Amino acid sequence: MSSLHEECGVFGIYSSDAGLDVAAAAHYGLFALQHRGQESCGIYVSDRGVPTGYKSRGLVGDVFTRDVLAGLGGGNMAVGHVRYGTAESNRSRNAQPVHVNHSNGSLVVAHNGNITNAGELRRRYEMEGCIFHTTSDTEVIAYTVTRERLKCGSIEEAAARAMAQLEGAYSMAMMSSQKLVACRDPLGFRPLCIGTINAADGIGNSFVIASESCALDAVDARFLRDIAPGEIVIIDKDGLRCDTRHCDAKKEKRLCVFEYIYFARPDSVIDGHPVHLSRTTAGQILAMEYPVNADVVIGVPDSGLDAAIGYARQSGIPYAIGLIKNKYIGRTFIQPVQSDRADSVRIKLNPVAAVLRGKRVIVAEDSIVRGTTFVRLVKLLRDAGATQVHVMSASPPYRHPCYYGTDVKSRESLLANRHGTPEDIAAAIGADSVSYLPFGELRRLVKPGQGICTSCFTGEYPVQIPKEPVKSRFEEKLG
Amino acid sequence: MSSLHEECGVFGIYSSDAGLDVAAAAHYGLFALQHRGQESCGIYVSDRGVPTGYKSRGLVGDVFTRDVLAGLGGGNMAVGHVRYGTAESNRSRNAQPVHVNHSNGSLVVAHNGNITNAGELRRRYEMEGCIFHTTSDTEVIAYTVTRERLKCGSIEEAAARAMAQLEGAYSMAMMSSQKLVACRDPLGFRPLCIGTINAADGIGNSFVIASESCALDAVDARFLRDIAPGEIVIIDKDGLRCDTRHCDAKKEKRLCVFEYIYFARPDSVIDGHPVHLSRTTAGQILAMEYPVNADVVIGVPDSGLDAAIGYARQSGIPYAIGLIKNKYIGRTFIQPVQSDRADSVRIKLNPVAAVLRGKRVIVAEDSIVRGTTFVRLVKLLRDAGATQVHVMSASPPYRHPCYYGTDVKSRESLLANRHGTPEDIAAAIGADSVSYLPFGELRRLVKPGQGICTSCFTGEYPVQIPKEPVKSRFEEKLG
Amino acid sequence: MSSLHEECGVFGIYSSDAGLDVAAAAHYGLFALQHRGQESCGIYVSDRGVPTGYKSRGLVGDVFTRDVLAGLGGGNMAVGHVRYGTAESNRSRNAQPVHVNHSNGSLVVAHNGNITNAGELRRRYEMEGCIFHTTSDTEVIAYTVTRERLKCGSIEEAAARAMAQLEGAYSMAMMSSQKLVACRDPLGFRPLCIGTINAADGIGNSFVIASESCALDAVDARFLRDIAPGEIVIIDKDGLRCDTRHCDAKKEKRLCVFEYIYFARPDSVIDGHPVHLSRTTAGQILAMEYPVNADVVIGVPDSGLDAAIGYARQSGIPYAIGLIKNKYIGRTFIQPVQSDRADSVRIKLNPVAAVLRGKRVIVAEDSIVRGTTFVRLVKLLRDAGATQVHVMSASPPYRHPCYYGTDVKSRESLLANRHGTPEDIAAAIGADSVSYLPFGELRRLVKPGQGICTSCFTGEYPVQIPKEPVKSRFEEKLG
Amino acid sequence: MSSLHEECGVFGIYSSDAGLDVAAAAHYGLFALQHRGQESCGIYVSDRGVPTGYKSRGLVGDVFTRDVLAGLGGGNMAVGHVRYGTAESNRSRNAQPVHVNHSNGSLVVAHNGNITNAGELRRRYEMEGCIFHTTSDTEVIAYTVTRERLKCGSIEEAAARAMAQLEGAYSMAMMSSQKLVACRDPLGFRPLCIGTINAADGIGNSFVIASESCALDAVDARFLRDIAPGEIVIIDKDGLRCDTRHCDAKKEKRLCVFEYIYFARPDSVIDGHPVHLSRTTAGQILAMEYPVNADVVIGVPDSGLDAAIGYARQSGIPYAIGLIKNKYIGRTFIQPVQSDRADSVRIKLNPVAAVLRGKRVIVAEDSIVRGTTFVRLVKLLRDAGATQVHVMSASPPYRHPCYYGTDVKSRESLLANRHGTPEDIAAAIGADSVSYLPFGELRRLVKPGQGICTSCFTGEYPVQIPKEPVKSRFEEKLG
Repeated sequence: MSSLHEECGVFGIYSSDAGLDVAAAAHYGLFALQHRGQESCGIYVSDRGVPTGYKSRGLVGDVFTRDVLAGLGGGNMAVGHVRYGTAESNRSRNAQPVHVNHSNGSLVVAHNGNITNAGELRRRYEMEGCIFHTTSDTEVIAYTVTRERLKCGSIEEAAARAMAQLEGAYSMAMMSSQKLVACRDPLGFRPLCIGTINAADGIGNSFVIASESCALDAVDARFLRDIAPGEIVIIDKDGLRCDTRHCDAKKEKRLCVFEYIYFARPDSVIDGHPVHLSRTTAGQILAMEYPVNADVVIGVPDSGLDAAIGYARQSGIPYAIGLIKNKYIGRTFIQPVQSDRADSVRIKLNPVAAVLRGKRVIVAEDSIVRGTTFVRLVKLLRDAGATQVHVMSASPPYRHPCYYGTDVKSRESLLANRHGTPEDIAAAIGADSVSYLPFGELRRLVKPGQGICTSCFTGEYPVQIPKEPVKSRFEEKLG
Repeated sequence: MSSLHEECGVFGIYSSDAGLDVAAAAHYGLFALQHRGQESCGIYVSDRGVPTGYKSRGLVGDVFTRDVLAGLGGGNMAVGHVRYGTAESNRSRNAQPVHVNHSNGSLVVAHNGNITNAGELRRRYEMEGCIFHTTSDTEVIAYTVTRERLKCGSIEEAAARAMAQLEGAYSMAMMSSQKLVACRDPLGFRPLCIGTINAADGIGNSFVIASESCALDAVDARFLRDIAPGEIVIIDKDGLRCDTRHCDAKKEKRLCVFEYIYFARPDSVIDGHPVHLSRTTAGQILAMEYPVNADVVIGVPDSGLDAAIGYARQSGIPYAIGLIKNKYIGRTFIQPVQSDRADSVRIKLNPVAAVLRGKRVIVAEDSIVRGTTFVRLVKLLRDAGATQVHVMSASPPYRHPCYYGTDVKSRESLLANRHGTPEDIAAAIGADSVSYLPFGELRRLVKPGQGICTSCFTGEYPVQIPKEPVKSRFEEKLG
Repeated sequence: MSSLHEECGVFGIYSSDAGLDVAAAAHYGLFALQHRGQESCGIYVSDRGVPTGYKSRGLVGDVFTRDVLAGLGGGNMAVGHVRYGTAESNRSRNAQPVHVNHSNGSLVVAHNGNITNAGELRRRYEMEGCIFHTTSDTEVIAYTVTRERLKCGSIEEAAARAMAQLEGAYSMAMMSSQKLVACRDPLGFRPLCIGTINAADGIGNSFVIASESCALDAVDARFLRDIAPGEIVIIDKDGLRCDTRHCDAKKEKRLCVFEYIYFARPDSVIDGHPVHLSRTTAGQILAMEYPVNADVVIGVPDSGLDAAIGYARQSGIPYAIGLIKNKYIGRTFIQPVQSDRADSVRIKLNPVAAVLRGKRVIVAEDSIVRGTTFVRLVKLLRDAGATQVHVMSASPPYRHPCYYGTDVKSRESLLANRHGTPEDIAAAIGADSVSYLPFGELRRLVKPGQGICTSCFTGEYPVQIPKEPVKSRFEEKLG
Repeated sequence: MSSLHEECGVFGIYSSDAGLDVAAAAHYGLFALQHRGQESCGIYVSDRGVPTGYKSRGLVGDVFTRDVLAGLGGGNMAVGHVRYGTAESNRSRNAQPVHVNHSNGSLVVAHNGNITNAGELRRRYEMEGCIFHTTSDTEVIAYTVTRERLKCGSIEEAAARAMAQLEGAYSMAMMSSQKLVACRDPLGFRPLCIGTINAADGIGNSFVIASESCALDAVDARFLRDIAPGEIVIIDKDGLRCDTRHCDAKKEKRLCVFEYIYFARPDSVIDGHPVHLSRTTAGQILAMEYPVNADVVIGVPDSGLDAAIGYARQSGIPYAIGLIKNKYIGRTFIQPVQSDRADSVRIKLNPVAAVLRGKRVIVAEDSIVRGTTFVRLVKLLRDAGATQVHVMSASPPYRHPCYYGTDVKSRESLLANRHGTPEDIAAAIGADSVSYLPFGELRRLVKPGQGICTSCFTGEYPVQIPKEPVKSRFEEKLG
């Protein structure tokens, strides 16, 4: 039901074990991160310094067929990426990772986030005679690192110098001919963690980098720790080391709270806090703040389920599965059955009448970003027999665009901006009530002391936002 | 986790409304029935008596692209089918519906079930000079109806006479040049229901036939009623009528109880009873019969969730989402990451450690048919920190092959036959305990007085089982 | 330029040599016969009595990918088919070979020609309770053979009895579980020949059947002989033998003369006469009959080239390549470049101005069936600078539909019927003159004494033509 | 039979006529140039300054489906490209045109030839902080033009300045947001011509640029003239103008003579001389230089046919079609039929025995580059009954690699280097004799006074050859 989309998921692996198939591992890692981006995906494998890659539009399972994986061959390092692709830039040429063949060596970059000064950097490079093939900020990163690399002795030093110039949100994995390097921006907007594989006990000799811990699980890696905001982790034949020059303990961190609310998988643990726990906690807070006399609590699958369970547990009102999501919806071509009606939302989501009929229903969802689907959802529940429908949003009203790696760009499209009070919004979507997680309670969703980014609720941006929309100037219609 | 697979889903529509796109309706209907068969699918549309069709291997959303649907064109009737395709016969030539061009008129047949005397009928027809293109029992049905049609004056009379010869389980939709005909076998093994569309109130002038009511919902049709065991429903320009000569109130009905336990979607209502309710009831019965001192109840997604919620509600132990299923698994190519290990089950199913760590866990599943995946599941839960794992099966031990439309053929492969007591089975899969729904409680899962087929639990077959495996004699390797 | 299309090519192989890959051989054989049918193709391989097959729309090279060929596996027999697919029946369900699984054994049939009493036979079988899946006469053949097989002891006896019932033109290859059987109709309308493979000298132990000898060449088989009109050839583990009961030396043969003029490949030898020789002879006859004062002789590629060379050789006027055919035309999507013009024929065929400018040009083509493309061709030559254009047709005026396996159905569409004299036709297409091979000279294109079918020129049909168009009654729009 | 491959074909169109579909025109233009490159193709369309493009591996007819062409939409300019893709670099990322989005405006470049100092330029740009996505010299061109564009006021001035830096062979079409610009290197290695479309008489208002005149024909454009070596042609809303600063009448031109011998289509006219005429002239010269007592002259299709006709005409020995090429060979998967033999060449090329049996045969081919296919060809002719086989090469012995846009890289692989005299070569390939066009006669194949490049025969290179193989350093295995 949500209209928010994360733009990317990142995966990297360095293996010292010849028995480990790094392409297969990247494949599974991306598969576990698929929820972070369904538009395109790519994997590059490095075999003794020579990278081979494949990237394409489509889902991981469709793109990486037996033949394509066989074509990638073996190696000791791999970097992979899944990408959402916003409406403005869903071009296959923007697929990641970005691969650069430079006389000084190759570089492969996979990135999650948004470089807010990408436009300025790009313009500067262009004025010095550089050309760009894509409209992606990842190419700006590749440029910045490559240019610094010309001036210093190692890829990690180049990365550190590049970080001094890059602003905004970034969690990335890079592969030079010999090293796997992972970086996270100093405010830590996007998650990034590290695990070890093939280690009976202690730290093994092979390492995995991923946007979320669920991707470590998928390759049977053991979670080691989150990469710290500002940290650079370098993995090569000598093992793992890190560069912390951009880590600043005094700077407040800005982990995107929507990672907990919606983006991440509930089985992931981010910066020390389980995503699942955030969501059930949100449900519990809603139950305490907004007690409702109701008969059943249901969640909108899949992102509202944990909040519904939390609400039910706290309130004592029974939890039930009240909506069934068609899990085959994928690429189905949608056309109206009846010429005079819009398509039924029931093709994707069908109510369980036995659960709802004659009941006062509480329905929990992660957030209410745009309103159109909610109007249909409330009608669906009432048609199935619900006598009352109370909507619980596991996040505060979403009012401001995000510039740090998600794709809600326009203030006008946001429901909370068009209707003032929760009562207005309830009236607009036809619900008996709409309740939002109080803004002040957001910090209870994360680890005590964890700094979070809440700019989509407040409009206060911790890092300067882009002056101009870089992408739109260059977009093609196809290709 | 289950190894049972329904073989088919059936959909039919007759429209008296020119504004109704019957191909689009069939497309959505099949989409809602996709869980009943993912191997192949097909739709035939009848335009003023001339049928046009398309069938292919693959999922509904992949097969019915914009171009294919456009190619089907408009019409006033359509019949569609999804098919599982058992291991022995996953041939595209067996895709349904079956279309026959006969000088007396065309016939399109879509069928769910299994004709137990198909081998005898086929052999008899062959000895009279007939030839068969497929190994499917649907071609036997098409033959039987066509041959009777030569001797009588209408398709419905031919269907009635054919039913006198066909034995076993069948719920089918047929389309002659003018009529849509639906039949259900006299014991009612498989579900079949009827709805009306475009009716502001009362019964409209367009009708929909489907294996499950969720397919009526998908096309915004209103549920009218189940088709009775033995009933023939005829729909044409004069409206809807029925032939009940094969309905015998004194005969005990044999609705497959596994439709409630596993096959059907929880939002469907079958023979007057909501599927969702059967499953939560099973969980409640298990809680009453097998109380366990535990900290959390989880279900194996998606088929064990309702039973888990029922158990939790009855026992007072908290319910939680403890396993996350990767919803993108679809066509992913699976190869081992490490040469010396089997693949991790965590690619498909990952535990939520925050829910399980240090907890005594009750895990509910619809059934335990074959054991291999359960061994891995229990290990997964323990590795995630569960201190105890108690498995609850929402059905009795499954011990006997089904001959009425599902694909478990071999007694040897069934877990319950290899290990005697629940204690043995618990030991075999590494669980602290395994509990099965008591056989005597099965009737509480259905409407009072509903006759059910329980032959997979008892080995007592209400209709004679096939004497020989017809299909295997003719199978090709490709095609 | 011709609008005639042969409907089929047939290939069969029986191997006693384990080192021979019969699927690969069939693949190459069909590839060599591709000119006889580009609509669909299929191969069945028999491995110890069990046939495995694959057929699909598309060219041989596109349909039989590495994976598909691997899926066919090994075996000792194979039958293959290419099919043109006329406008009325280009349905993939009509693709050949036809495969029937009968309790008495399997049967695979591939056929070239047209059974003129297929409609009557089909209707009779249907009235006895048979059903048909396709609208192809090959299914009628399969039925007839199968029904006779029930009454007699061998497939070859069944074939012989079936031939007594089948009327029209047929050259076919059949495969039972143990035998490869080839039949040619008693009048010998369509070619069929046999070769041996793997024989250092004398007759080897592996045999190949093909519509044209060029397919024997493609698999390095040695040409043995043509199969005689009415002959049945049986190949099994005991070698090759034949049944000649339907061979009647007194009956005049009716080999389609258009096989020499247009259908067959110039490197094939049919019934003892090289196709190439027929065509150059036609050109020589035209030069003797219609001397023209011209500067250059060109042919329409590829079917008019040999006639042009013959004309040039006889007349002493220089031969040149005056038209270049784009060999990549295949599946190119054609849309108008300029909204107000029809597409240029020059996309497919471009004149060589250096050859034509200021020249009086003789242009040879196999035949003039429909006129539209000739109008554009003559204009093309004039635009390129030809001062005169004289058209030479290597066949007499084509005036009557063919019912023996080609697809010109309507008398109205034939140019020669719309315009009376060659002068009228020249005026209609804008040429200075049009000359046709005199009907009386046709016999000089074939071996002395060879009986030929000339019904498309005369309207006198040696075998009764169909009473009704069977196919059109059953056609679907898609499928 | 030749092992030479041209690397590219270029097409550009500028339209002032709203009724002209520039995407369709580019499609047809590339289709006519397909023989110059079958590996990949691409089209960019500019609609009021915004370019939209699509490029992919595959043939024009397969890549540019109805949907893809529709996606390109309308516009007033287009640039297209077909590419051979040498063995070292058949990567889809090297597909052309190259599209660059620069803040100063977009640039699309399509190029045929080879920039011999691309390695040096690339290294220089990289050291200044540029990065490259491909290994193609077209990206080097795009860089050079873009960098000059920053320093001057127009794209044509930037092109002129870039030409001062680029060395080697190039014929290219470029598209800025407002202009179509075509350039040809000062020595004129590769052809490039210009035509006008939609002009009843005189010069129209729409212009077409193409590697060969046959592409002008395909879009019904009228040939205007060849673009001169060193010339820059600029087309925009003000019409056509040119910049000749790099044209130097005193410099000897170096048109690749192999364009006449093999690369170009026989219906093209290059630098004022018809390709067809070159080839028949070569045959006539061979007949005068090497008279042979023979019975028939045949050519290897398609590139040897005109030389064979020339030889026949000069010598009086009859010309015939002695080899049939399978025109469907395209993508056919080739595997051995018999485990102990190499594949038969007869799958691709089959002799016409009726032409060859008992004859002394002269066979003409454009050139003899590598020997393996000739060994098989001579054997094929002898097996078909030729008593003598005399090979005529329409070009001198090919002894040296080409660095100006074709793909023969290794001296070792060239037949003429491994065997000294024609007698040695005849012995090596099994022919009775082998004769080469005398080097001194090469100038008779072109217009009097036309300067040609003959470095592949002499090893004397008019432009310095590359110091290092740039491409190989960066190649991936896939992607």
